[in-house]
Amino acid sequence: MSDSRVYNFAAGPSVLPLSVLERAGAEITNYRGSGMSVMEMSHRSKVFMDLFQETQDKLRRLMNIPRDYHILFLQTGASGQFSMIPLNLIGKTGRANYAVTGNFSNIACKEARKYGEITLACDTGDKNHSCIPRQPDLVLDKDASYFYYCANNTIYGTEWDYVPETGDVPLVCDMSSDILSMPVDVSKFGIIYAGAQKNMAPAGLTVVIIKDGLQGHELPFTPLMMNYKTMIDKDSMYNTPPCWCIYMLGLMLDWVEENGGPEGMERLKWQRAGMLYDTLDSSQLFRLHADKNSRSGMNVTFRTGDEALDAKFVKEAAAAGFVNLKGHRLTGGMRASVYNAMPVEGVEKLCGFIRAFEKMD
Amino acid sequence: MSDSRVYNFAAGPSVLPLSVLERAGAEITNYRGSGMSVMEMSHRSKVFMDLFQETQDKLRRLMNIPRDYHILFLQTGASGQFSMIPLNLIGKTGRANYAVTGNFSNIACKEARKYGEITLACDTGDKNHSCIPRQPDLVLDKDASYFYYCANNTIYGTEWDYVPETGDVPLVCDMSSDILSMPVDVSKFGIIYAGAQKNMAPAGLTVVIIKDGLQGHELPFTPLMMNYKTMIDKDSMYNTPPCWCIYMLGLMLDWVEENGGPEGMERLKWQRAGMLYDTLDSSQLFRLHADKNSRSGMNVTFRTGDEALDAKFVKEAAAAGFVNLKGHRLTGGMRASVYNAMPVEGVEKLCGFIRAFEKMD
Repeated sequence: MSDSRVYNFAAGPSVLPLSVLERAGAEITNYRGSGMSVMEMSHRSKVFMDLFQETQDKLRRLMNIPRDYHILFLQTGASGQFSMIPLNLIGKTGRANYAVTGNFSNIACKEARKYGEITLACDTGDKNHSCIPRQPDLVLDKDASYFYYCANNTIYGTEWDYVPETGDVPLVCDMSSDILSMPVDVSKFGIIYAGAQKNMAPAGLTVVIIKDGLQGHELPFTPLMMNYKTMIDKDSMYNTPPCWCIYMLGLMLDWVEENGGPEGMERLKWQRAGMLYDTLDSSQLFRLHADKNSRSGMNVTFRTGDEALDAKFVKEAAAAGFVNLKGHRLTGGMRASVYNAMPVEGVEKLCGFIRAFEKMD
Repeated sequence: MSDSRVYNFAAGPSVLPLSVLERAGAEITNYRGSGMSVMEMSHRSKVFMDLFQETQDKLRRLMNIPRDYHILFLQTGASGQFSMIPLNLIGKTGRANYAVTGNFSNIACKEARKYGEITLACDTGDKNHSCIPRQPDLVLDKDASYFYYCANNTIYGTEWDYVPETGDVPLVCDMSSDILSMPVDVSKFGIIYAGAQKNMAPAGLTVVIIKDGLQGHELPFTPLMMNYKTMIDKDSMYNTPPCWCIYMLGLMLDWVEENGGPEGMERLKWQRAGMLYDTLDSSQLFRLHADKNSRSGMNVTFRTGDEALDAKFVKEAAAAGFVNLKGHRLTGGMRASVYNAMPVEGVEKLCGFIRAFEKMD
């Protein structure tokens, strides 16, 4: 396979459309006749400011983001937001409500405890995070400054199929691994954020969509670069933003639009994931980690129950051009991450490989 | 000029070598036969881990970084370090000593006041930061947890031509705009850091070189992503690092090595800056912002004294292919940033343009 592209099922950073990469390559030394690469441009130059504005506008249009929401292009991934959210929001009442349904919401919750009192809406740790609670099972805290959850649990392969109802408590959602994979009613949220390196862009960019009015309550020791108000007031350009990643996001948003927008992405999502779940459900060899009604459309986690056999599967799959199928150490087994840019054909072929592997075994 | 490259004198992000951009373009869809772009790779994959390690090794070799220093690849630029440094270091004695010689050291100093007591080693604000103090003029604080300075002041065009002597107090240096432009004795420093987007790589990467033992004194509310100890323990991979920027840094380090390493960069630095200073010193029209003995080899700041004429110069220069020469609003006039990747030929031609402009005027 050394001269050709592979099917890359990595959990993030992850596959990007070939056409997007080729477009980036074609203009890498001279963007729009500027005589320079996007990587060389002053972030204050007109050509870059236009690119920046167009990218914000595209995201606003595609996600139907209301005018009273700011779009920020930040750095340090979801883990940076684990601190930034409580640093800026928890000061309102001194407490926050966390739904722990996986590794990353658990870390976010632990980080927030540095800055205030935390109440748990749920913790699925006792089931190794194989399920998502239903609305009536959530223990809501009406005095919380915000309610926090992670929409899709990359490691465990579970995904919320509803938006929690939390009354007047603002919803904060980590959508790192399912943003732009379906239409979302942004007006239900206080903050939606995503590390871009799964569904949207290369690593190094964090997109934050924040309702106006939530900023301005930061704790006194909030670092300069972790203050939402500063970033809103400076339109993400307090200092130099991650220009190349913003540019790549713009190319990716064009691709999403050309492929039917969030509605088109949602059709593709369940087409890909549906094929995998059908194949695995009808298998005698493989079983799934996630409960049937909590399954993710982005990360399909499965195993044989035999570690040596799992390892053989991963190795033979890689040799056949299906790479990065090894599961996270917290779940073991295999994981197929099938983000926006994964071609349906790649999943069809993987399903064929799964069936053939079972027959051969 | 729309079909060809320009001479880009931007202060950052700034020019990269054409050969580096072309190499990145050539492997943008398939890096080293992996079947994928660097932008798509899992940061835990062998192919990326190899790239990461090689890049660290190259920097260590080129800068002759001793083994008891860690090399970190972080995010959020110098401004992120403005907080991270006091959050991690000031706890030792509760105070720190700042040399304010420009806009960025001033912001760093202001940020540090959130976290402890600050003593000033100097403040050149009353001279609009046109000079660098000499060693005997520094007001040192022997009880400081660290001494902080910025080696090159991008906005004002001044550069320290010596490393301050601070006894047992660790030196912390912002080298964002002159790193790799000369050999540096790293063993004199506690921390050297640089936003990479001037001399080393695209925006989105901050390189931190930190002596072992300085970590582990963080304040209790230090955010997860701003803890040096965590980043050292996880070798900069607590979460996904800015992979593409790290890759570009590696290509740039190859280029620096091919061009004589830091010694070669230093020769080119003063060849470029020397031509500009000679041209401007012999001009009747232009005058320099920086004092003669404080001049930067990276950013040459000058003006005519007539704002309309300055604007005319910037506009006509751009039309002739010399772009981004407008000075920062804090100094006015013009600024030619001549970083590592600026070809000598670009400066020769700019000097010709300066002389011709003066004759025509």
